[in-house]
Amino acid sequence: MRTQVAIIGGGPSGLLLSQLLHRKGIDTVVLERKTRDYVLGRIRAGVLEVGFVNLMREAGVSARMDAESFTHDGTCIAYGNDQFRIDFKALTGTSVVVYGQTELTRDLYDARQAMGGQIIFNTENVQIHGADTDAPYITYDAGQGEARIDCDYIAGCDGFHGVSRPTIPDTLRRDYEKAYPFGWLGVLSETPPAHHELIYSSSERGFALCSMRHANLSRYYIQVPLSDGVEKWSDAVFWDELKRRLPEDVAERLITGPAIEKSIAPLRSFVTEPMRWGRLFLCGDAAHIVPPTGAKGLNTAASDIHYLYNALIAAYHDKDIDGLARYSDRALARIWKAERFSWWMTNLLHRFPDQSAFDLKMQRADQEFLAENEAAQKVLAQNYVGLSY
Amino acid sequence: MRTQVAIIGGGPSGLLLSQLLHRKGIDTVVLERKTRDYVLGRIRAGVLEVGFVNLMREAGVSARMDAESFTHDGTCIAYGNDQFRIDFKALTGTSVVVYGQTELTRDLYDARQAMGGQIIFNTENVQIHGADTDAPYITYDAGQGEARIDCDYIAGCDGFHGVSRPTIPDTLRRDYEKAYPFGWLGVLSETPPAHHELIYSSSERGFALCSMRHANLSRYYIQVPLSDGVEKWSDAVFWDELKRRLPEDVAERLITGPAIEKSIAPLRSFVTEPMRWGRLFLCGDAAHIVPPTGAKGLNTAASDIHYLYNALIAAYHDKDIDGLARYSDRALARIWKAERFSWWMTNLLHRFPDQSAFDLKMQRADQEFLAENEAAQKVLAQNYVGLSY
Repeated sequence: MRTQVAIIGGGPSGLLLSQLLHRKGIDTVVLERKTRDYVLGRIRAGVLEVGFVNLMREAGVSARMDAESFTHDGTCIAYGNDQFRIDFKALTGTSVVVYGQTELTRDLYDARQAMGGQIIFNTENVQIHGADTDAPYITYDAGQGEARIDCDYIAGCDGFHGVSRPTIPDTLRRDYEKAYPFGWLGVLSETPPAHHELIYSSSERGFALCSMRHANLSRYYIQVPLSDGVEKWSDAVFWDELKRRLPEDVAERLITGPAIEKSIAPLRSFVTEPMRWGRLFLCGDAAHIVPPTGAKGLNTAASDIHYLYNALIAAYHDKDIDGLARYSDRALARIWKAERFSWWMTNLLHRFPDQSAFDLKMQRADQEFLAENEAAQKVLAQNYVGLSY
Repeated sequence: MRTQVAIIGGGPSGLLLSQLLHRKGIDTVVLERKTRDYVLGRIRAGVLEVGFVNLMREAGVSARMDAESFTHDGTCIAYGNDQFRIDFKALTGTSVVVYGQTELTRDLYDARQAMGGQIIFNTENVQIHGADTDAPYITYDAGQGEARIDCDYIAGCDGFHGVSRPTIPDTLRRDYEKAYPFGWLGVLSETPPAHHELIYSSSERGFALCSMRHANLSRYYIQVPLSDGVEKWSDAVFWDELKRRLPEDVAERLITGPAIEKSIAPLRSFVTEPMRWGRLFLCGDAAHIVPPTGAKGLNTAASDIHYLYNALIAAYHDKDIDGLARYSDRALARIWKAERFSWWMTNLLHRFPDQSAFDLKMQRADQEFLAENEAAQKVLAQNYVGLSY
C-alpha cells in the first residue's frame, strides 16, 4: 500500500491531522493499535483552547461541538474556603470550550468515515523503517500477516508508549522528565456539575478539581499518593474526601452519585527533543506529557498538529519544505511554554510530601498574590486560554 | 533612665524610627552595640522603594538623598547574550531610587545628632525585661556598669543576630527558613558602573549582578559556592569570572579597578512569626531576611517601620492601640509578599547544584516567558518598585 502521509495512532491527534489533510487533497492512512470502541472508552481531557476549536472548524468537524459544548469565560480557584475567579474573558478577550475528548474523537471518527478515510485498527507489531531516508515505510500486522505502507512522511501520533518516539535513535534524542510524587484519582459520575465553571481547589488535605463534560456528567479529581490503588477508594470514601477538600459552600451543594468510571493516573512532565527525525514527525503525547493541572494535554497535541498540518500543506502545495524543517523547533517552543504553565500550576495547587514549612508559606504567598494581583491573574489566563501559535 | 520608646539597634531601621517619632514629639533612646563608624562601614543595599523614600522625606532626612540619588525607571535582565529591559515606569508608573545604605545611614545619624537624639553606642550585654508586662525595661552595659532604661515600648531593630528575637519565647515563636546552596561574592570598586541601570544576569556559569552606588562607585556580585572564601577570589579572577557571566557587549565595556571592598554573604530566606510579643516589636532583619535578589532587604525593614511608626503615633496621640495590636499581622502580610518575590527572583536567575535537566528547562522557560510577556513583566515590576503598604 502507498499513501502520502502515514499516521500512527487513531486518537484525536492522528484523526484530526488525517481529516485536515484529506480536505486539502492529501492522502493519509491511520494505523490504530486498538479498536474504535477502545479509543472512545478512554476518559480524558475536556477543556479546549480556541486554537484547538479553530482546527476542528477548519477540519469541518465542529458542528456538534459548536452546538453542544460549553463556553467557559473563567475558572474558580479556591484555597480552603477562600475562593476567587480568574476572568479569562475580561483578562484576555478569549474563553475556553468544554467538550469531552470522547465526544470530539467520536466526531472525528464519524467525519473520517463519512469521507472514506482509511483507518486500520488492531495493528500490531508496527515498525517504522527508513525514517531518515527519502523512502520511509511502515510495517505492521493487522491480523493477516505483515503488511507494508510506503509513504512520503510519517506522523507519530501514537502516544507516550507508542513506537514512534523510540524509533528516533537514543544518540539523537534527549528526554526531559519530572515525575510528581502523587497521582490524580478521577471519578466520572452522571450528576450535575458542582459549579458552572471548573473549581481548582488547593486544600491542606491535597488538591481537588471539579470539572465536567456536560450538564449531567461531572468529572472530579483528587490528588492521591502514588501508592494508592483504586480499590482503596470506594465511592463513599471518595465523595467524603472530595468534600473535605472543597470550600464548604461547594461541598454542601455537591450532588454525588455512583462512579461510572474511576481511575488513578500519575502526574508527569515529559518532553523529548527533537520532535522530528528525517521524515518522522512526533505529535502530542508521543513527544510530550504535561500534568493535567491547567488542562494542556490535548491542547499541546493540537498545537503540534497545527504546525505539522501547515508544514505539510506548504510542502505538498507550494513545494516549500521550510515548515517541515522547522517543525521541531516551532512545536517545541510552544510545548515548553505549556510545560512551564502546567508545572507551575501543579506546584501552585498540590501538596508535596517534601514541602518544608517555608515552602508551604511560599506556596501560600503565591496563591494569595494570585488572588489579589490582576497582572498575575492575566498571566494565568493567557496561558490557560492558550498562548498564540 | 526613662524613655517612651526604647530602640535596640542603631542601623537605618532604628535610626529612621527614632527620627520619625522624635518629630512627632515622642521620646526615644537608641542602643547600638557598635560604634557609628562601624555601622557606617557596612556595605549594604542601595535600591530604595518609593515607600522608603517617602518615609525618609517624612522624617525630614531626604535633602541629600533627593539631590544625589539616582532614579531608575527600569532594570535589565540578561540570559547569556539575550537582554531585555523591565520598564518599571511604563508598567507601574513608579521608579526606584538608588542611594547607598551607607549614605542614608549617615544622613540619619546627622539628623539624629542635629535634633539631639539619644544614641548610646558600645552597649554590651543588652537584655529585654518584662516585654509581656506593662513595665518593660532594658538593661545594658555601655562601659560604666549595668544601666537600665524603663520605657513604654521596645522596638527590636537589632538585626538577625540581635537579642530581640530570641527574647520572644520559643514556645510562642515559629521560624521559617530556607538556606540557599550558594552565596554572593560582592566587590565594590571606584569605577563607573557598567550600565546606567542594574543588570541581572543569569548565565550558565551562575548569576551575576551589576549594581552601583553612584557615578564612580560600582557594586558587582557573582554567585559563588558556599565553600568559597574571599581569598580564592583575587581581583583579576573576580573580574574575569564576572565578564564571563555578562552579555558580551556589557563585558566588553566593563571598566575594572581595584576592589575597595570584597566579601561573601550566604543567601537565606527567614521569617519569624509573630513579630510582636507584648510591648516588644521586631523590625527588619531581627524578624526576617530575604536573599538580595530583587533588593528587598532594606525595603522590608522600611515597611515594618512604616507600620510601627503609624501604630505608635496612633497609640500616643489618639490613645488608639489597634495598630499596635495588629502590627505583627500587618507587617507579616507584606513581608511574606517580599519573601515570595525575593525567593522567586532568586530561583529564576541562579544556578542550583541539584537542578535536573528538566528543572533547567523550566527555569529557561520561565526566563523566556518573562522576556516576551508584558503581564509577567508587570508582576515583576510591581513587586520590584514595591507593593502598597
